[in-house]
Amino acid sequence: MADLINSTGFLHGGDYNPDQWLKHPEILAQDYALMDQAHINTVTVGVFSWALLEPTEGSYNFAWLDYVFEKMNERHGHVILATPSGARPHWLSQTYPEVNRVDDHGQRHTHGFRHNHCYSSPVYREKVRQIDTALAKRYGNNPALIMWHISNEFSGACYCDLCQANWRSWLQRKYQTLAALNDAWCLSVWSGLYSDWSQVLPPSPLGETKVHGMDLDWKRFVTDMTIDFYGAEVAAVKAVTPELPCTTNFMAEASPQEGFTPLIGLDYAKFARHVDVVSWDSYPAWHNEHESIAETAMQTAYIHDQYWSLKQQPFLVMESTPSFVNWAQYNKPKQPGMHLLSSLQQIAHGSDSTLYFQIRQAWGNSEKYHGAVIGHDGSADNRVFQEVAQYGGQLEKLAAIKGATKKVRVAIVFDWDSNWALNRGGGFGRPTRLGLKTLQKHYAIFWQQDIACDIVPSTADLTRYDLVIAPMLYLMRPATMTKLQAYVAQGGTLVSSYFTGMVDEYDRVNLGGLPAPLRELFGIETRELDTLLPHEHYHVQYDQQTYATHDYDEVITATTATVLGTYQDNFYQGTPAVTVQATGAGYAYYLGARLDTEFLTEFYAPIIAKLKLANDFVTTPSEVVSCQTRYKNGQAYHFLMNFSTTPQTVELQRPSRNLLTDEAVGRTITLPKFGTAVLQA
Amino acid sequence: MADLINSTGFLHGGDYNPDQWLKHPEILAQDYALMDQAHINTVTVGVFSWALLEPTEGSYNFAWLDYVFEKMNERHGHVILATPSGARPHWLSQTYPEVNRVDDHGQRHTHGFRHNHCYSSPVYREKVRQIDTALAKRYGNNPALIMWHISNEFSGACYCDLCQANWRSWLQRKYQTLAALNDAWCLSVWSGLYSDWSQVLPPSPLGETKVHGMDLDWKRFVTDMTIDFYGAEVAAVKAVTPELPCTTNFMAEASPQEGFTPLIGLDYAKFARHVDVVSWDSYPAWHNEHESIAETAMQTAYIHDQYWSLKQQPFLVMESTPSFVNWAQYNKPKQPGMHLLSSLQQIAHGSDSTLYFQIRQAWGNSEKYHGAVIGHDGSADNRVFQEVAQYGGQLEKLAAIKGATKKVRVAIVFDWDSNWALNRGGGFGRPTRLGLKTLQKHYAIFWQQDIACDIVPSTADLTRYDLVIAPMLYLMRPATMTKLQAYVAQGGTLVSSYFTGMVDEYDRVNLGGLPAPLRELFGIETRELDTLLPHEHYHVQYDQQTYATHDYDEVITATTATVLGTYQDNFYQGTPAVTVQATGAGYAYYLGARLDTEFLTEFYAPIIAKLKLANDFVTTPSEVVSCQTRYKNGQAYHFLMNFSTTPQTVELQRPSRNLLTDEAVGRTITLPKFGTAVLQA
Amino acid sequence: MADLINSTGFLHGGDYNPDQWLKHPEILAQDYALMDQAHINTVTVGVFSWALLEPTEGSYNFAWLDYVFEKMNERHGHVILATPSGARPHWLSQTYPEVNRVDDHGQRHTHGFRHNHCYSSPVYREKVRQIDTALAKRYGNNPALIMWHISNEFSGACYCDLCQANWRSWLQRKYQTLAALNDAWCLSVWSGLYSDWSQVLPPSPLGETKVHGMDLDWKRFVTDMTIDFYGAEVAAVKAVTPELPCTTNFMAEASPQEGFTPLIGLDYAKFARHVDVVSWDSYPAWHNEHESIAETAMQTAYIHDQYWSLKQQPFLVMESTPSFVNWAQYNKPKQPGMHLLSSLQQIAHGSDSTLYFQIRQAWGNSEKYHGAVIGHDGSADNRVFQEVAQYGGQLEKLAAIKGATKKVRVAIVFDWDSNWALNRGGGFGRPTRLGLKTLQKHYAIFWQQDIACDIVPSTADLTRYDLVIAPMLYLMRPATMTKLQAYVAQGGTLVSSYFTGMVDEYDRVNLGGLPAPLRELFGIETRELDTLLPHEHYHVQYDQQTYATHDYDEVITATTATVLGTYQDNFYQGTPAVTVQATGAGYAYYLGARLDTEFLTEFYAPIIAKLKLANDFVTTPSEVVSCQTRYKNGQAYHFLMNFSTTPQTVELQRPSRNLLTDEAVGRTITLPKFGTAVLQA
Repeated sequence: MADLINSTGFLHGGDYNPDQWLKHPEILAQDYALMDQAHINTVTVGVFSWALLEPTEGSYNFAWLDYVFEKMNERHGHVILATPSGARPHWLSQTYPEVNRVDDHGQRHTHGFRHNHCYSSPVYREKVRQIDTALAKRYGNNPALIMWHISNEFSGACYCDLCQANWRSWLQRKYQTLAALNDAWCLSVWSGLYSDWSQVLPPSPLGETKVHGMDLDWKRFVTDMTIDFYGAEVAAVKAVTPELPCTTNFMAEASPQEGFTPLIGLDYAKFARHVDVVSWDSYPAWHNEHESIAETAMQTAYIHDQYWSLKQQPFLVMESTPSFVNWAQYNKPKQPGMHLLSSLQQIAHGSDSTLYFQIRQAWGNSEKYHGAVIGHDGSADNRVFQEVAQYGGQLEKLAAIKGATKKVRVAIVFDWDSNWALNRGGGFGRPTRLGLKTLQKHYAIFWQQDIACDIVPSTADLTRYDLVIAPMLYLMRPATMTKLQAYVAQGGTLVSSYFTGMVDEYDRVNLGGLPAPLRELFGIETRELDTLLPHEHYHVQYDQQTYATHDYDEVITATTATVLGTYQDNFYQGTPAVTVQATGAGYAYYLGARLDTEFLTEFYAPIIAKLKLANDFVTTPSEVVSCQTRYKNGQAYHFLMNFSTTPQTVELQRPSRNLLTDEAVGRTITLPKFGTAVLQA
Repeated sequence: MADLINSTGFLHGGDYNPDQWLKHPEILAQDYALMDQAHINTVTVGVFSWALLEPTEGSYNFAWLDYVFEKMNERHGHVILATPSGARPHWLSQTYPEVNRVDDHGQRHTHGFRHNHCYSSPVYREKVRQIDTALAKRYGNNPALIMWHISNEFSGACYCDLCQANWRSWLQRKYQTLAALNDAWCLSVWSGLYSDWSQVLPPSPLGETKVHGMDLDWKRFVTDMTIDFYGAEVAAVKAVTPELPCTTNFMAEASPQEGFTPLIGLDYAKFARHVDVVSWDSYPAWHNEHESIAETAMQTAYIHDQYWSLKQQPFLVMESTPSFVNWAQYNKPKQPGMHLLSSLQQIAHGSDSTLYFQIRQAWGNSEKYHGAVIGHDGSADNRVFQEVAQYGGQLEKLAAIKGATKKVRVAIVFDWDSNWALNRGGGFGRPTRLGLKTLQKHYAIFWQQDIACDIVPSTADLTRYDLVIAPMLYLMRPATMTKLQAYVAQGGTLVSSYFTGMVDEYDRVNLGGLPAPLRELFGIETRELDTLLPHEHYHVQYDQQTYATHDYDEVITATTATVLGTYQDNFYQGTPAVTVQATGAGYAYYLGARLDTEFLTEFYAPIIAKLKLANDFVTTPSEVVSCQTRYKNGQAYHFLMNFSTTPQTVELQRPSRNLLTDEAVGRTITLPKFGTAVLQA
Repeated sequence: MADLINSTGFLHGGDYNPDQWLKHPEILAQDYALMDQAHINTVTVGVFSWALLEPTEGSYNFAWLDYVFEKMNERHGHVILATPSGARPHWLSQTYPEVNRVDDHGQRHTHGFRHNHCYSSPVYREKVRQIDTALAKRYGNNPALIMWHISNEFSGACYCDLCQANWRSWLQRKYQTLAALNDAWCLSVWSGLYSDWSQVLPPSPLGETKVHGMDLDWKRFVTDMTIDFYGAEVAAVKAVTPELPCTTNFMAEASPQEGFTPLIGLDYAKFARHVDVVSWDSYPAWHNEHESIAETAMQTAYIHDQYWSLKQQPFLVMESTPSFVNWAQYNKPKQPGMHLLSSLQQIAHGSDSTLYFQIRQAWGNSEKYHGAVIGHDGSADNRVFQEVAQYGGQLEKLAAIKGATKKVRVAIVFDWDSNWALNRGGGFGRPTRLGLKTLQKHYAIFWQQDIACDIVPSTADLTRYDLVIAPMLYLMRPATMTKLQAYVAQGGTLVSSYFTGMVDEYDRVNLGGLPAPLRELFGIETRELDTLLPHEHYHVQYDQQTYATHDYDEVITATTATVLGTYQDNFYQGTPAVTVQATGAGYAYYLGARLDTEFLTEFYAPIIAKLKLANDFVTTPSEVVSCQTRYKNGQAYHFLMNFSTTPQTVELQRPSRNLLTDEAVGRTITLPKFGTAVLQA
């Protein structure tokens, strides 16, 4: 880890594929010259190079990779070296067909695409171990090497016989007895009781697709299988280079319903415990027609903050695009200025890198229209290249900030398995679960006011926070209930909502209504949860204003809580919609209905005031200018970013120095369209 | 049957799954106390209990079921006992994989879900016979047992080799020779002539998907296979309990195009001849955004009336929800009052039961958010429970009505196979066939005026009706034509339309235009059928008003008919659109165009007047208040139901007594929102 | 070929299936009487008659076909005889399962549908050869026989082991070495390098779906395989009848995005080189709600012109409907007058036939509701029949025009493989590629002004044209660049656009920006291509008007070109959007942005004026009246067609004679709704 931590300044660079250009030495030579012009100090190599590194089984070809290290050492640059397991060579799939995945219809796939190998195959694991070991032995001591990039963007699952056996073993370890499994998954429903372990298959459209508990455990199993495979690769390289940090690139995804969010297919909170540094591939759709640029920025900020929170330390942006992607419906290039703005946002939220996919744009094949630092024109006289170079220069001015930390007093709670269960459950409004979108709506209140938030799993230490926001925490373990009780008792402020604490670890509904610890904590009882139709809205009166409800109205009874908001209509007219209960020095708020941003702003205002959470540098927070702050060696570094297309003037509490321009800044600063400033104050 | 018929009062209760709670005796004990509070007198048990009843092959466990019978006998309650064939145990699928269905891609499924066994498998039939026999022997004489519930919600098909062989045998019995089959399916098209029976496969995406006649026969075969399987189970239980009635629960379905209708996958008219009592599972979407509550009520009424009509005797509602379902997009709970209203509607249309899925809400697994009498809170202090209990009390006040019959003078004709052919045919407007929706539009005219309708197959005895409505009776056998001729000749009034009599039994177009018997009957010839585009409308002048046409305009010539309505535009301007021909004492009306409710109201008004069909109790029929009447022992029981959210005043022809309140009612009654009354007059 | 060419007058008739009515001799007799009434002189027979021609392997039944020839000879009519390979008999699929296709999931299909045999199977080829030879021997010398109709509507592909082997052989012939293949497809991406030919599989959802170069070559291979199969059939019949022309019916297709276009699944430009006469099946949706009738006419005209252009000689309309089709969402019959109008359009654009699917409507099965000359009523007293007969009479008046040619000075360039690559490429706006729609937008400018256009592949001789329009010619070979340079240098006028010359023969991006020959030709450099979102528009100023851009704005630099239009906004404000460069006597125009019809009209006006392209007969071209001209023996035949529902008056440059009415026409003519005239002047 030392090498990465000790490296000077932010990492700037990204995926580099000289292996695609070996027959064009003039292009390889041009690459390094252009990288220098663009202030690139880091390359990620070898991500999909197995077929070139090991053209036939057991014979290696490292010459081209030696050359990369040589060139990077020449310029005191860094290499992040990938293990190539994300895409195997044809000969491997052909010689050992069992390395190819079997899909959930039981069909073995042939070679093709990438990221589609079996995680269980002993042959595949051995072949990966061999190539990983060979790479580690050859480059482990190379001064340019700063980190292992294990495989690439893990995702998906295999349903082969070996994986099925692992699934059954995983279940046997967890449940010990079939009776326990039958109980946990409530298999007396629909005659589903197992009488022998061999009857347990994975979920499949050809078999079982309806057992909620099975689906939940399958997702947990897939996470564990993936981590296990990752761990085997880490073991291989750490056997040779025990000090070098390992990471793998996490992902985000966009859906029409939830917006841009972390990938929810793998439990990254669990996975993060196994990586030395969190890294992720950040591809927001910066210019689109369904939201404002500030809204895109808010969602991206949320993901940055979540990946910061997983280890509470600087993370890496492992991939991002200098211009456009190639896989969207509309692959619009970043407009002038957006590259500097969006890249600086990464640093502002805690990244120690801006890395791209990719350095040089591919000549052909699937990703040929993915943006790159060096385009098909191979020219430095190119808008994209010039913005990258300009940004690279800016990063060098900010080198002192590398490794800086954050000060965060607000946490939002997100559990992957709770979200899986929430989305799986059936009932209520299927299109309106929107657990992630709901969290982001709470987050947005704070982002707009420049108040830093962490997004943490329920297993996190919450005592460090003044405010914990945990709406729709659907699946809740007893330990979490106890922790939340203790948190409030010790003076914490907690906000929760409908859809909280409804099911247990096995996705079984908590019988008897809201669990006793939560009833005590919030001072309420829950009666029923009315699902609203898309155009059906009722109203809540809160602090002399009336707000429309959406999607869900929960009917609750306040036993000991104070009623803050009351339903104005429907059959629950006059009953509590928003409550608070004081316990010790703490407060536990409960939102019975889904209420929109206008309400949330009003709701959080007195909490923010009381807890003195307001930003201590910016006097005039706005919905389009974001201020994020990193701290190091007693210094505060305020990143100001204008996510709008018009100039914005920001009032500040004290004078500062803009590190990007090396100019003094007084009590106001005006940022042009997409403008940025990094103020040391 | 005696037991069921002799049981006192309406059945109230439903699916009960103590097998899911055997480790929680405190919950089992609570169940019976709560059932008593809710006036529940009937439980349906064992629907999916095979894995518990026969945990390993050949060894039975009846103790928990004995307890149910014991408890129900204690309270003089009833048990409807299900055979468990709807979901087999894992060991059965594992030991005899041939019991699992093969899909239409030829892939054998593994164990999972439910309702997915092969209907042909001799092993499965034998295993089912054994468990059915064991149940019959153990409980056949139990005084609580009133009925067999055979399997559950039959649906789907298997494409395994055995089923394929049965398919060929079925065809051989029907057609005798390959030449006849080749002719019936018009297989000279596309070189499809069979030269050997072994070439005949089921429809499949991997093979044949285009032969209309094959698709039609396949659906008939699937119905017959299903009835045959059902019959084998009936034989098993009747061998032990020859007197006990058997049923299986029919279904309904909702589609965006057709609305809420009976299930059309199986020919229930044929199936009904094999059950002792018709029962069905009624799940209308009571609160939605695409139609009014009265429209939902009308569609639900239609289905009740159709299931009444299948045997012309009281049917059972075997399942319904006390609150919400779990499988819709929006699973909105019934709002206050809706439960009493919607449940009473069942009785009003001829049901002798209100049964629920389910008594106690499941703890986990697929259906955990399906509504139940007893919710997850296990509380009697619960809106849903209280409405169920209130309704149970009401039902007891109506006990005398149990078994009451109906007086119906209007019939709508619906044939399953005609509808299959209509939807399969290609040509015209694919999204605008809408055969079922069209029938419901005719039905609505009568429902709104509180005139009872039957919905009967074309094989029914029509002479009992004064008015027979048979629009879009696409597939017509010669016998039906003869019957309709005779019906009108004997003084009946018949209404038909475009798309009638177009194809024969084999889905071959009747050559030579409209068949001669229909030409004679209606006194018209059909020239061509113009398909209108979605926003294309022409106009018909009828009785000095002009009405827009939709979807279809048929060009016809009146040979002997009287022209009642005339097209006002397009190339058939001035030609007949609506005709009538008098034959003997009868009248045969023909509607050439699809015309909407406004027209139908005007069209039927003189017919209703002439035939004196108007309701003889309600003076002021309305679109939102429904009156349905049952008759018993010379008494009339008028059910008044307000399917609107505002109070409605109804004028009545004579004084009566409201059985729900035991109050006298004069010449008017005002029903509150969702209000009901049962008036004996 | 002589027989076809020498036949007198236009072919009128179409697919005739007496094989479906052999048990109904009264219908067969009626057929010929009705054909005579309808002026039908040609029947296409045997398209799907294999099962009847060879009921069991090796035994033939020609009696019914003898009868067709006998009847057609009686009336001096023509027979187009189909080889029956489009749909094999059941016995063939059963005896030789390898003739059934394997799909891209590796699953062998069973018998069913049609057009789904393996192209590689030696058994299938041999069986086809036998039946083809038998047909040729029996009917080759029959005077009625004028042409072979080889198979039917070729499409699709097979993925069986034999086809895979052919795929590898095809690649080996093309690339010689694996290294060349690895380079061409850029397989160093994602570790895709082959180390053995046996690793090369077809694209498949179970394997490779992402390699652009593979997908492009696969489509080329499928075209070649199809032509090879076609060629084998041609060889069989030409061995017996070397003089008879062969064709196969090409297709068109409709998509919501591109509209009505030639089928793009097969490279018809290549295929056309192997047929003696181009023929196609023309099924425009004449009455719809998404476009005007004139727009439908324009798109249909485009396809006629493209099929004319493939061989620069009269083509045949092999199928069209007299009324409606059966496979659309809304199968609206042609309204009165449309049949004459739409059929005459075929002749106007260069068809020597109007042939229908079909003569007599099928009794049952899949196509029973496809329109036909003789309907289910079997009546001559039928609107459709009467319009067909009227049209048949008109065609006889035009007999002298048969074989007439066209004079065309404008060409639009379309390459199938360029379009495949364009749509496959990823990046930019996926829904907004719209290569075909863009060509049709250019075409429409000329169609509306009654200026004839060819649509030719880039391999065509361009020197015959005064204006060549080649926008979005995405994949460009060096030879094409050279040809375009020469064309302009020699005085031609060329129009091109964004998305031109971007990739090479292997779908690899041309490195270094726009290729040098194109940079020189247009006098520009391309900088970047901005993808616009659906509602994002910028503006171009051109000739003092401002026009909105759509979908794409390319940023370009004019090196030596003259700037004609300039961007008015966005970050490329003030830069060139439309340029022209003069070279020798020629001009090369470049359109940087996608601009709509309003702009294109203004843009082409001076070009049309300068090149004197305006129609020399019609003084008042209009958007709804089309004039197309054919030439023969020094005579010009002007077809005037009113594609609107209101009368239209057209001014003419000189007097003429209307061949349809045999009346003299002066300087104006008024066409009624859907009216037509054929003016000899």
